[in-house]
Amino acid sequence: MKAADTRDVALDIATAQPPPQAVAMWWLGQASVVLRAAGTTIYIDPFLSAYPDRLAPPLVTPEAASADYVLCTHEHVDHFDPQTLPGMAQAAPHACFVVPLHMVEQVTALGISAERVLGTQPGEVLHLGAITLLAVPASHGLKAPPAHYGFDFVEHEGKHLYRYLGYILEITGVRIYHAGDTVIYDGMVERLREQEIDVAFLPINGRSYFREQRNIVGNMDEREAADLAAAAGVKLLVPIHYDMFAANQGQPGALVDYMQARHSEQACLIPAPGRRFTFVKGDGS
Amino acid sequence: MKAADTRDVALDIATAQPPPQAVAMWWLGQASVVLRAAGTTIYIDPFLSAYPDRLAPPLVTPEAASADYVLCTHEHVDHFDPQTLPGMAQAAPHACFVVPLHMVEQVTALGISAERVLGTQPGEVLHLGAITLLAVPASHGLKAPPAHYGFDFVEHEGKHLYRYLGYILEITGVRIYHAGDTVIYDGMVERLREQEIDVAFLPINGRSYFREQRNIVGNMDEREAADLAAAAGVKLLVPIHYDMFAANQGQPGALVDYMQARHSEQACLIPAPGRRFTFVKGDGS
Amino acid sequence: MKAADTRDVALDIATAQPPPQAVAMWWLGQASVVLRAAGTTIYIDPFLSAYPDRLAPPLVTPEAASADYVLCTHEHVDHFDPQTLPGMAQAAPHACFVVPLHMVEQVTALGISAERVLGTQPGEVLHLGAITLLAVPASHGLKAPPAHYGFDFVEHEGKHLYRYLGYILEITGVRIYHAGDTVIYDGMVERLREQEIDVAFLPINGRSYFREQRNIVGNMDEREAADLAAAAGVKLLVPIHYDMFAANQGQPGALVDYMQARHSEQACLIPAPGRRFTFVKGDGS
Repeated sequence: MKAADTRDVALDIATAQPPPQAVAMWWLGQASVVLRAAGTTIYIDPFLSAYPDRLAPPLVTPEAASADYVLCTHEHVDHFDPQTLPGMAQAAPHACFVVPLHMVEQVTALGISAERVLGTQPGEVLHLGAITLLAVPASHGLKAPPAHYGFDFVEHEGKHLYRYLGYILEITGVRIYHAGDTVIYDGMVERLREQEIDVAFLPINGRSYFREQRNIVGNMDEREAADLAAAAGVKLLVPIHYDMFAANQGQPGALVDYMQARHSEQACLIPAPGRRFTFVKGDGS
Repeated sequence: MKAADTRDVALDIATAQPPPQAVAMWWLGQASVVLRAAGTTIYIDPFLSAYPDRLAPPLVTPEAASADYVLCTHEHVDHFDPQTLPGMAQAAPHACFVVPLHMVEQVTALGISAERVLGTQPGEVLHLGAITLLAVPASHGLKAPPAHYGFDFVEHEGKHLYRYLGYILEITGVRIYHAGDTVIYDGMVERLREQEIDVAFLPINGRSYFREQRNIVGNMDEREAADLAAAAGVKLLVPIHYDMFAANQGQPGALVDYMQARHSEQACLIPAPGRRFTFVKGDGS
Repeated sequence: MKAADTRDVALDIATAQPPPQAVAMWWLGQASVVLRAAGTTIYIDPFLSAYPDRLAPPLVTPEAASADYVLCTHEHVDHFDPQTLPGMAQAAPHACFVVPLHMVEQVTALGISAERVLGTQPGEVLHLGAITLLAVPASHGLKAPPAHYGFDFVEHEGKHLYRYLGYILEITGVRIYHAGDTVIYDGMVERLREQEIDVAFLPINGRSYFREQRNIVGNMDEREAADLAAAAGVKLLVPIHYDMFAANQGQPGALVDYMQARHSEQACLIPAPGRRFTFVKGDGS
């Protein structure tokens, strides 16, 4: 992966004016996704620091990012990066941060003031300007070995909280699902189908005993992502979370082979890191 | 490949209203591509008949197609289908047909009146309503064995004509390249780069001794298509011409694997047959 | 690719004692193949020098190689390496070198005495101790661009000689084909079928316009190699010539995918560089 000019990507994000009922999107590697529509810029799981071992440098620096909303799905560093968030908070003083409820203090501990931070949980619907945001559970694992996948509830101020989230956003009529880190669990297909997802950003790195032995917990794999998208009637599948660490990669080619064999009716975009793509409401019909 | 509901695809094409500076697109299998923008519908290489051996039935019938322009790149049946064109001509009495210059009579021989047919050649720029159309050479082969790839000039009314074409269209500011059937030839990269192509529909089935022995001439392969798109700075690569005949397939997964290894800065869409996708000017920047 | 312990590979080769009617084999990367049977060690296209740009260091040094016969298919450096052959000649003073007839002087020019060098041509059968050796034509290309594939005959001492060879060897009843660098040409399938090939070492790097522009002539590709092995009734296909140079790779995964889809009756071995594998007469029946 070659690094694009950092400033250009940030500028393209900041100045993009997608048409009505369209969402401009950028994948910044791993699970970092940027959405822009209705004059609103949303960064999901921004991982923009020069973290050791990353295979490609960040395409946008925290200081150049111009977010209105920053969403983090869970506490792992490639999703919630203490070296990224303070710079983003300073660069965009109006930006609001959304995290799993028990993580609010982890955000304020970074020096981001409490009124800028929202904790959420599955079942809650947040109306954030142009965005309708629905948190959904993710089933991941905090530690391995032994491998453990589950919702991994956290006890927090007397509540029983989902530790890992995914997000379903509706903006300008387009429904986008960012899965966070998750395996597939009972009810996921039905929820996505019910929510009429247009674009699903799904991890494809899979689970592996050997990675788990190295304390790398996994996600759905290429075939599961393809089967999920097809079963849920997702209009466009965008595989993510396969590229950033040599020890934790997925195979988008294997995804495409499987899709062609099993779900040729499913569209798939392999995005170029940092390059804009747009979904227009009605695409995939 | 499963059949989509024929009526739905035709209706979706007929009624799509992409935003300004955006082009709605549909891949109908093999090299059949539909574009719609600025109230104009363009069918390129429509192959909509129930031809024997096709792996999937047509997604739109000729009678349901509502073309303003029908472009054919060359005379092979999956690009110029005598069972498709008359029905399209009847269904859309205003539709105009564009073919390589020496093929005009092949169109009128199908009962399509001469005033509806335009013959073109590389170098010529046609202004067709909202479309600016530039024909470009394609280097293919009419018969094998032995394998022969070249421009295969035709002598026609004292002229030396390119037998195979590709088309570069500009509509609503978006530049689209449909390669037709072609290998890569000297000057192709430079022309595409100069034309600042946004979306390139490229064949990926490749060339094979064994297919050539069965009189199946080939095209660029997966690796060449990826290298071409990257070298020419194409914003979005859409592989086509790999799916329709068991004897002449390509491997889009191999394309994606190669792109990830060599050109991870290149975006690629694996379209679902008959499902709409939209390119918005500025995508890929 | 990690380097194995140089001495170990050389030692393993030197000391291997395959059972009767069995051939021990080692792939040393690119087209370098070693065979051992009946107390005889054959190096084919040894490329054992620390050539710039190679992706993996040589697994055996020329000085450690203990060949009885060294076969080179043609003059390209990865098949006929002036930095490899003199060391091999010194290390094994009894070793005999077999090359295309017009290349005999290229061998003696390296300081290897003429009585140790045999030039051969297709049609000739050499009996070399336990080996019966049949040279067969290869159709490659000396220079590009433009791409040129053919037998590329050389005029030499009034004779019209094949520039590129492949070799069919029979040893202890096992028939092995090393294709050299070649595309598939008319008659190849029939010859291999007639020769009842047990093991075929076939290049899979393919041909590419972009590599040809850089003066890298190509070979059969993954699909062609699979089709060839299946058509010729080869018992075991071993893909080679895909691994050594970043600018000239093949995709063994694409080979395997294609074989699974089209020729699931065909066995294929993806060898580990430097690791012994054995073919026993009757395998593949």
